[in-house]
Amino acid sequence: MLRIDLLSVVPDMLHSPLDHSIIRNARDKQLAEIHVHNIRKYSTHKHRKVDDYPFGGGAGMVLTPQPVFDCVDALKSGRTYDEVIFMTPDAPVFTQDDANRLSLCSNLMILCGHYKGVDQRIRDELITREYSIGDFVLSGGELPALVVTDAIVRLLPGVLGDAESALTDSFMDDLLDAPHYTRPASYRGLEIPEILRSGDHKRIQAWRQQQMEDKTKQLRPDLYKQFLNNQ
Amino acid sequence: MLRIDLLSVVPDMLHSPLDHSIIRNARDKQLAEIHVHNIRKYSTHKHRKVDDYPFGGGAGMVLTPQPVFDCVDALKSGRTYDEVIFMTPDAPVFTQDDANRLSLCSNLMILCGHYKGVDQRIRDELITREYSIGDFVLSGGELPALVVTDAIVRLLPGVLGDAESALTDSFMDDLLDAPHYTRPASYRGLEIPEILRSGDHKRIQAWRQQQMEDKTKQLRPDLYKQFLNNQ
Repeated sequence: MLRIDLLSVVPDMLHSPLDHSIIRNARDKQLAEIHVHNIRKYSTHKHRKVDDYPFGGGAGMVLTPQPVFDCVDALKSGRTYDEVIFMTPDAPVFTQDDANRLSLCSNLMILCGHYKGVDQRIRDELITREYSIGDFVLSGGELPALVVTDAIVRLLPGVLGDAESALTDSFMDDLLDAPHYTRPASYRGLEIPEILRSGDHKRIQAWRQQQMEDKTKQLRPDLYKQFLNNQ
Repeated sequence: MLRIDLLSVVPDMLHSPLDHSIIRNARDKQLAEIHVHNIRKYSTHKHRKVDDYPFGGGAGMVLTPQPVFDCVDALKSGRTYDEVIFMTPDAPVFTQDDANRLSLCSNLMILCGHYKGVDQRIRDELITREYSIGDFVLSGGELPALVVTDAIVRLLPGVLGDAESALTDSFMDDLLDAPHYTRPASYRGLEIPEILRSGDHKRIQAWRQQQMEDKTKQLRPDLYKQFLNNQ
């Protein structure tokens, strides 16, 4: 079973996404164990302070080393972690390949950044892997940590109801997904493509493949190039 | 004031991130109004069903048109939306430029995809803008919608305590952020860089700029190229 420990200074932010949908299913089926830790509880400061002004001046507060080192130490005393991950915009971008690889691990720790940043010594000494989820800035690492958790957990065997589903996702073969249609065939005068009612599975498959290639070529030329290279 | 309407089939998943941290601050200060809508409530099906099998076969369930069309109609009857956004992996990737632009809007609707996908007619008829948050697959569009909401809301004037803070973020000038250090200067034998204690703000600024350029060049050659082009 995969265990993920999430470390945050706003742990309450994390609860509802962990308690619903796919992640909830995985926890209920005991396919994943997810623990949320409040970094503030590890602060030895009399007011449980966890941040301080940056050395050298500048805007924003910085997460101090002590509570994070002590929290990570406490967790490491219980088990061996495959990776101690830090979510931050100044890092390589997380991809499906990373999700696939991490889904094979046993114990993962994910530190959510907050405030302006964290003391660099935390990153240098404790963190084994850093990820950004994209070229945009968020108020903290909590949502990115949830994104990574969701991307990993849904890949665990038995989590998705339909075993085939994850294999036909976008990116699984460097192509974006084909359009989907469901009942009714006509809604407010909008019809589904005729071919999907043909019952001819070979032609439907060819149509879907063409849609995937066309869409990828148009929206994501970078992915399309990768697809062509792998043919 | 910016209003964001989030449409989901698992609305309970959205609550804790909206009720804490920066998004909560923005709502408390009445700088942003965020409403969560349960798509299921709009279903006219006797069991409030919102999904069905895909035409033409294949794995996974597809969100049906009726509840989404009716929910969007109901919201549109109350105000004019600048954008009706759909979060999906088969779309252009969301960036800080999109966050900047959307933060100037008045009314935004964000539809969270779920199940295998949504009926393409929803996308063709109702959606004005589609975003992916990256090349990975999640169990739904809820976390991506929260990511976009957070990225936008923190840019609204007055939301961040420290006005300067958003301007010194990563990506604001195509460079990743410099390392941060806070007290104590020595922790477990780990020292901060000597220059940050010099009090020489000009040299500190030059050191930070160099760190930003070095880090970007190493971790994100694509961004670094963009930075050089804009010099």
